Amino acid sequence: MEKNNAPMQDVQSGPSSVALPLDRVGVKDLRLPITVRVKGRGEQQTVADAELAVDLPSKLKGAHMSRFVEALKEMSHGLSYDTFKSLMADITERLAAKRAYARLRFPYFLEESAPVSGSSFPMGYDCQVEGEYEDGHLRFTLGVAVPVMTVCPCSKAICDEGAHSQRAIIRIKARFTGFLWLEDLIAIARNSGSSPVYALLKREDEKEVTEDAFRRPAFVEDAARAAALGLSEHPQIKWFEVRVESQESIHDHSAFASLSMRKDAGKTNRG
Amino acid sequence: MEKNNAPMQDVQSGPSSVALPLDRVGVKDLRLPITVRVKGRGEQQTVADAELAVDLPSKLKGAHMSRFVEALKEMSHGLSYDTFKSLMADITERLAAKRAYARLRFPYFLEESAPVSGSSFPMGYDCQVEGEYEDGHLRFTLGVAVPVMTVCPCSKAICDEGAHSQRAIIRIKARFTGFLWLEDLIAIARNSGSSPVYALLKREDEKEVTEDAFRRPAFVEDAARAAALGLSEHPQIKWFEVRVESQESIHDHSAFASLSMRKDAGKTNRG
Amino acid sequence: MEKNNAPMQDVQSGPSSVALPLDRVGVKDLRLPITVRVKGRGEQQTVADAELAVDLPSKLKGAHMSRFVEALKEMSHGLSYDTFKSLMADITERLAAKRAYARLRFPYFLEESAPVSGSSFPMGYDCQVEGEYEDGHLRFTLGVAVPVMTVCPCSKAICDEGAHSQRAIIRIKARFTGFLWLEDLIAIARNSGSSPVYALLKREDEKEVTEDAFRRPAFVEDAARAAALGLSEHPQIKWFEVRVESQESIHDHSAFASLSMRKDAGKTNRG
Amino acid sequence: MEKNNAPMQDVQSGPSSVALPLDRVGVKDLRLPITVRVKGRGEQQTVADAELAVDLPSKLKGAHMSRFVEALKEMSHGLSYDTFKSLMADITERLAAKRAYARLRFPYFLEESAPVSGSSFPMGYDCQVEGEYEDGHLRFTLGVAVPVMTVCPCSKAICDEGAHSQRAIIRIKARFTGFLWLEDLIAIARNSGSSPVYALLKREDEKEVTEDAFRRPAFVEDAARAAALGLSEHPQIKWFEVRVESQESIHDHSAFASLSMRKDAGKTNRG
Repeated sequence: MEKNNAPMQDVQSGPSSVALPLDRVGVKDLRLPITVRVKGRGEQQTVADAELAVDLPSKLKGAHMSRFVEALKEMSHGLSYDTFKSLMADITERLAAKRAYARLRFPYFLEESAPVSGSSFPMGYDCQVEGEYEDGHLRFTLGVAVPVMTVCPCSKAICDEGAHSQRAIIRIKARFTGFLWLEDLIAIARNSGSSPVYALLKREDEKEVTEDAFRRPAFVEDAARAAALGLSEHPQIKWFEVRVESQESIHDHSAFASLSMRKDAGKTNRG
Repeated sequence: MEKNNAPMQDVQSGPSSVALPLDRVGVKDLRLPITVRVKGRGEQQTVADAELAVDLPSKLKGAHMSRFVEALKEMSHGLSYDTFKSLMADITERLAAKRAYARLRFPYFLEESAPVSGSSFPMGYDCQVEGEYEDGHLRFTLGVAVPVMTVCPCSKAICDEGAHSQRAIIRIKARFTGFLWLEDLIAIARNSGSSPVYALLKREDEKEVTEDAFRRPAFVEDAARAAALGLSEHPQIKWFEVRVESQESIHDHSAFASLSMRKDAGKTNRG
Repeated sequence: MEKNNAPMQDVQSGPSSVALPLDRVGVKDLRLPITVRVKGRGEQQTVADAELAVDLPSKLKGAHMSRFVEALKEMSHGLSYDTFKSLMADITERLAAKRAYARLRFPYFLEESAPVSGSSFPMGYDCQVEGEYEDGHLRFTLGVAVPVMTVCPCSKAICDEGAHSQRAIIRIKARFTGFLWLEDLIAIARNSGSSPVYALLKREDEKEVTEDAFRRPAFVEDAARAAALGLSEHPQIKWFEVRVESQESIHDHSAFASLSMRKDAGKTNRG
Repeated sequence: MEKNNAPMQDVQSGPSSVALPLDRVGVKDLRLPITVRVKGRGEQQTVADAELAVDLPSKLKGAHMSRFVEALKEMSHGLSYDTFKSLMADITERLAAKRAYARLRFPYFLEESAPVSGSSFPMGYDCQVEGEYEDGHLRFTLGVAVPVMTVCPCSKAICDEGAHSQRAIIRIKARFTGFLWLEDLIAIARNSGSSPVYALLKREDEKEVTEDAFRRPAFVEDAARAAALGLSEHPQIKWFEVRVESQESIHDHSAFASLSMRKDAGKTNRG
């Protein structure tokens, strides 16, 4: 068939009938295996969900979406600041764009040891790396989501016995100078609730975790501020955002608290 | 155009190239507004998600899927046993089938009053009606999902102070004789944890809810058995299934317990 | 017991050990029934998911979270710009805050008639109202998510027969002067893909919808620009954001395109 | 403190106040890294979500939930039939139970090569292993979820041009004799729609995939039957269940078809 032998039309490179530039054009919900460096222990393999995009000028009808996947294919398997920056430079070039955006989300596992028995089991944390790239400059953001336990200070103060507790999730995003480990952000979050949580706890650990949590009751506001304090004291971190959600055990809804801070300004973004 | 005026081909009624009967063919994730009867108080409007299916004999290539939607359109807006049975008879007939399946899932709201202040606010419960229809007979199942609070009995027994608590979800499905209200299943579930939960609690309520929960510590196993006991004592219920999931506040995973019971048999299904 | 009779401690109003102001403190995932006004046809009842928050100064330990729920309880059932603004003024006052944030998400149903047979069935659209309130001023944003069908222009141009099509979701947020109906945003979105989609289509409708879609192939970029064009031509809309995601049928990932525009500036936010 | 030095109470081993046996008691939503064997290529590391349970007799108040996690910790990292069976024997013994249940869900990646260019990229498939264990016997089930593309045969027959297509998900569960690879189930599913889907397609591939799909239009019923035919012809498979869901591009709801078959009976379960 004649049609098959002719060069195929490049529809995307044609003109757009509506001459508006697009902020981001790309792919999302694309899964792939990746390798992440582990603090002091080599690396671990995990599974990522990718979103990649570039800007599109008003004169082009479409982006060649397969080029994002080709760029991911070429990415060195080991995810790091350098390989991530190269990926973004690569998609900017492959798609002849001015700006690029990329985000990889993945569970990241750390062995966590129970406080009394020392029994350990991996805890999975939902992490992400996110970047905005323009003119050779990468604005790079690390993110972690860390479950903790909170004991309600109000409930503890007013009750003759007990206090309601629940799982809370501390989400942190941070920008920084130099190199920062996911482990550092996770450690700050784990210390910001009433107690860290664990996958494997024997009875003596459960006693310690519960009693420790009751010694340090924390509203969702307290957990957000404790994480913010830890992040503000970290010498490399120059911007962060904290959002804590507490799955209140006396309700079917959640409580939350959030703040963000640019440290060179010495105060919160809106303060 | 000639082609447009010709009668359109009925592809679905043609023969299947693979002569296998199908158990269920239908539509799912179809949203629609519905009206549900409320115990002693008229009715409430809510939003349902529908799944409807019939069997398909080996000789037919496909089902006419639009007929499910037409049947839903004809359904009297007020959802009840009778209208649901009519819907199922209708889809069986419209699709020339032997058997039909239907499930409607919807949030259902009940005003719940706080135990001390009496303040009230609607609590939304995820409910469902489910049916299997054949030869004019409907096997009808009601289902509810009810959040409660559980206090860990082990944690309470071994700790010098406190005990971890968390939100747990009690899911019940039940078959019964006569008429049964969603309210009856919800009430059984609300009484089966350490405490019911509420949307609106003032400080004096929070104190009472917490202390009440600490007076009645319950493992996920205890909550499942308490619900099962309540269901087994209900004179109309002839079969039920209970599944409780507790979102453990000292872990990032959940604990669960389940059982089902056919009451004419006087014991659990597997016992 | 003596403790019970003493006035209960107001822990939230006490000092915070970390003197950082919080951007937002509040509740989320709180479900409630609401009533929404329908263009030209009275109102409809639906089910909302609420997120409400205020800022918290550095000197206060916590917010009285139950006051958000009390404010929702007092809200006139009919959701409108005026009742939403009153809700936000109310939470600002109840919580002695400077700023408030609120968002209600809900499915909203419109009868959509098939293009040839005229058969109609309600289509549910995920909508939201969102507000930021400060000093008596409300920045109000309406949002809709509208499924459409897209036919790939590249696939259509290069294939001897056919072209891949898929469901795409057009998400619009808009700020505006005067009064704007959800219906207006939904109509713009429905016209921005290759074809609108419907719950109920008879065979003659399916033929028309498919052929119509094949006459108007649209990349995700085209759909985003078409929606942007419609929004930019609407006299009341002063800011909008469009994000289109296409669930590519030849892949297991999605393509997306987005832009935002401030119309007084006469160009896109980043352009 | 005296209490701390006393042996801690074993609450779980105490009597239950409600003497009902429980079908399943266990843990769920527990994440961990695992290693899965790959057909002909060693193994791959991925991330699993585990659900583990045992039965609980009426005389025991609770199960020692930490023992499930200890059993997972002891599990040889390489997931296989043998290690999975050992895990189940282990939890049965650790928890002094008669029966055990286990399910591990994980994304599993296979390089898939585009049909013309040969470009390859990993495709992630949601897979699971599931087991019911009693008296040393394991009933073992493999499961896969595979996205494909379907072109509507009715739309193709009645339209002057085009036909709607969409992504569909083929879910298979199978029990078998001997050893069966996930790859075998995935291959059957990939061949059962109008076309397999790929992460990376160049223009010549997109042309081929689309034209191939249009040559093989398939209702959701056809895809279910094609998969069933492939499974029924596989000599090792003795039971299977197929469920196909098609995300109809002309609707906002899905169509589905399902069947199950016990091959020794020579017909479907309900046929």
